[in-house]
Amino acid sequence: MERVWTTQLGAHIGERVRIAGWLHRLRQLSNLSFLVVRDGQGLAQVVVEDPALIARLAELHAETVLAIEGVVVAEPQAPGGVEIHQPTVEVLAAAVAPPPFDLFRPAINAQLPTFLDHAPVGLRHPRQRAIFRVAAASMAGFRAALTALQFVEIQTPKIVGAATEGGANVFRLDYFGQPAYLSQSPQLYKQIMVGVFERVFEVGPAFRAEPHDTPRHANEFVSLDVELGFIRDHFEVMAVLNRALAGMVAAIAEQCQPELALLGARRGEALVLPQVPAAIPTIHFADALEMISRATGEDLRGEPDLAPAHERWLGEWARREHHSDFLFVWGYPTAKRAFYTHPDPARPGYSRGFDLLFRGLELVSGGQRLHHYSDYLAVLAERGMNPASFGGYLEAFKHGMPPHGGFAIGLERWVARLVEVPNIRETTLFPRDLTRLTP
Amino acid sequence: MERVWTTQLGAHIGERVRIAGWLHRLRQLSNLSFLVVRDGQGLAQVVVEDPALIARLAELHAETVLAIEGVVVAEPQAPGGVEIHQPTVEVLAAAVAPPPFDLFRPAINAQLPTFLDHAPVGLRHPRQRAIFRVAAASMAGFRAALTALQFVEIQTPKIVGAATEGGANVFRLDYFGQPAYLSQSPQLYKQIMVGVFERVFEVGPAFRAEPHDTPRHANEFVSLDVELGFIRDHFEVMAVLNRALAGMVAAIAEQCQPELALLGARRGEALVLPQVPAAIPTIHFADALEMISRATGEDLRGEPDLAPAHERWLGEWARREHHSDFLFVWGYPTAKRAFYTHPDPARPGYSRGFDLLFRGLELVSGGQRLHHYSDYLAVLAERGMNPASFGGYLEAFKHGMPPHGGFAIGLERWVARLVEVPNIRETTLFPRDLTRLTP
Repeated sequence: MERVWTTQLGAHIGERVRIAGWLHRLRQLSNLSFLVVRDGQGLAQVVVEDPALIARLAELHAETVLAIEGVVVAEPQAPGGVEIHQPTVEVLAAAVAPPPFDLFRPAINAQLPTFLDHAPVGLRHPRQRAIFRVAAASMAGFRAALTALQFVEIQTPKIVGAATEGGANVFRLDYFGQPAYLSQSPQLYKQIMVGVFERVFEVGPAFRAEPHDTPRHANEFVSLDVELGFIRDHFEVMAVLNRALAGMVAAIAEQCQPELALLGARRGEALVLPQVPAAIPTIHFADALEMISRATGEDLRGEPDLAPAHERWLGEWARREHHSDFLFVWGYPTAKRAFYTHPDPARPGYSRGFDLLFRGLELVSGGQRLHHYSDYLAVLAERGMNPASFGGYLEAFKHGMPPHGGFAIGLERWVARLVEVPNIRETTLFPRDLTRLTP
Repeated sequence: MERVWTTQLGAHIGERVRIAGWLHRLRQLSNLSFLVVRDGQGLAQVVVEDPALIARLAELHAETVLAIEGVVVAEPQAPGGVEIHQPTVEVLAAAVAPPPFDLFRPAINAQLPTFLDHAPVGLRHPRQRAIFRVAAASMAGFRAALTALQFVEIQTPKIVGAATEGGANVFRLDYFGQPAYLSQSPQLYKQIMVGVFERVFEVGPAFRAEPHDTPRHANEFVSLDVELGFIRDHFEVMAVLNRALAGMVAAIAEQCQPELALLGARRGEALVLPQVPAAIPTIHFADALEMISRATGEDLRGEPDLAPAHERWLGEWARREHHSDFLFVWGYPTAKRAFYTHPDPARPGYSRGFDLLFRGLELVSGGQRLHHYSDYLAVLAERGMNPASFGGYLEAFKHGMPPHGGFAIGLERWVARLVEVPNIRETTLFPRDLTRLTP
């Protein structure tokens, strides 16, 4: 008999079907038991009345893998509106021990480190796995939006010969006797590829050896990278980011309604997706500082960056004044941005770099880049960086590069903010941090 | 004026338009010149009659970035059937030196190492970049086929605490003072994730520190990984691979007709895509050996694997007997397959592992995996491997895993075979090998 998903049972009422999945929960009442089976899509309730079968099931550990045949019966009280009656149960693979925590409860009752230690089992929890369906939909929506805008997907190397963004926070490895590094971002390669396709994107891992332990950083993360050529200025880059975000939210809305319901269940209503405005509001860095100064009385003259508290303030301001969860801050001081950042010709000291704040948290960095070979030679010299480390990159500029820019979205940070979990370790399948290299 | 792509010019005949791109070639005739401009999509021919402008253009290096306004004129002789007349030319970014090789010739006139040294410029050649559009379409088709089959995309860590497939060929790195490794494949994680979603796929980098120098290996490659649960046997895995390949070929056919024409131009006709049969022919490993023995007179009794010559022989046989570019060989001896390979219960010594040959070359490895915890403990002990290195992996099996299997396609090898280039360094954007860590 062909197996059906638990989520399809409503289409088979009155039929005998086969389902398969994990023993999610066995609830024993006085004269019958409810067996809840979890498959890759959802849950199904199986009513067991045969005392011999109840006794057999009671000996199984949760998470034992089962195949069940039975008759689908409409039952408004049951989850999903159906139950399976008159079951026969086959054990496909026995669990040999009880799970480290109950998976049937609304939330896992364990501290985060314990959960992470047992992620291979903990990720099976419906709420935890819902998070990664949202991540998958985000990637799909990102790619769909960019493909529609003629962007080409690329895959660039993660073992590199020089540190992309500076040498301090880079993992070193031995490459057949030569020193090599793990890519901190595809920045240099995606810029090179603007010379080939004009418009490129990449979804891939990025590695930062930063020895800090915060809820918003991990040492390996998934970076959604974009770069495009023949722009007038950074505002065209921001417009593409605006479209990419709209595509990501649209894909989640289309593919993840059950997950949004589940993730919002704690407070009794489905999680609300952000509205992505047709044009996300923008503010210049200097204006933002001045506004915060006026409101808070802080003296922020000469500040080169926004502190997290300032980002939160701006997030609330954008919500209040523009009814937007998103806010572009652009024109960050050049000195605090990466060497390839294009200065603002109209305003010395300020750049064409931007950040996107999402609900008061920096989610994306981007900007227009330098595109003249001579500008690169000058900025590397000025910053005391060695041009020899940037051979292939500089070659692209030597041979003609258009005005261009781009951005990078941190996938785990995006999902964390979206599903309102405080720590990106919950939105990373198997996080890597100062103390965590397994599982 | 809004810029238009060179490939859209046919829709603007008689209009004044703006195009932008790279100075691909300047052909000077006695009283006029042809300026060929390359943008991210294609080429456009610009007719220049003004002697002052011709003189100005003659001073520019190839690859200088230009914006051009002019009138679109139908001209059947011109590439694409249109030309631009009465141009004005603006230099957006000057190339400061001639390119290392001519990009306007039908093929780059350089040895592969020279090409690779200058890949940031060489990839701009229309034929080279066509290869990477085929790669992008392959990834898109792979994801579309699997998404339609309810697979969920995952992103698993590339920094790992233990060597996935054995210790010899793994890159080591220093992870905050602890030894760590680069992932040789997402094998263990995708199996774990079968416990979560049942059906998962991943597109990401894989790293092998193999010190060999062949046209079909690189030390970093893009792996298209799939794993699925609740299978009867490996034939269900092979059926999913069959669907994935059909999706990949369909996406290339849909998105890459100009690229196929360009890549086949050497022999005067568009590149022919393989037909993916509704059911790719299959042969058991033992039957394959016996057939080759009979045909060639070689004594292959007891051979544990197929040599490349045998794979070629089988590729020709599949072409001749089944009119297929693809052939499944299954039932490889268990001893030569990875520890997680499921043995064939019906045939001791043989496994449920398979390879897919594409035009006589191994393209994919896959199979059914073990799924019982006790089987893993036994096989690790038998092979002298340390269970402590597989903590999180074994935890998944301890808590119930269904019968499952999967496969991995090497993207660069697929594209190389498809576009008929002999070395995967031509189908890798920036290849990493024994001697090559840059660009």
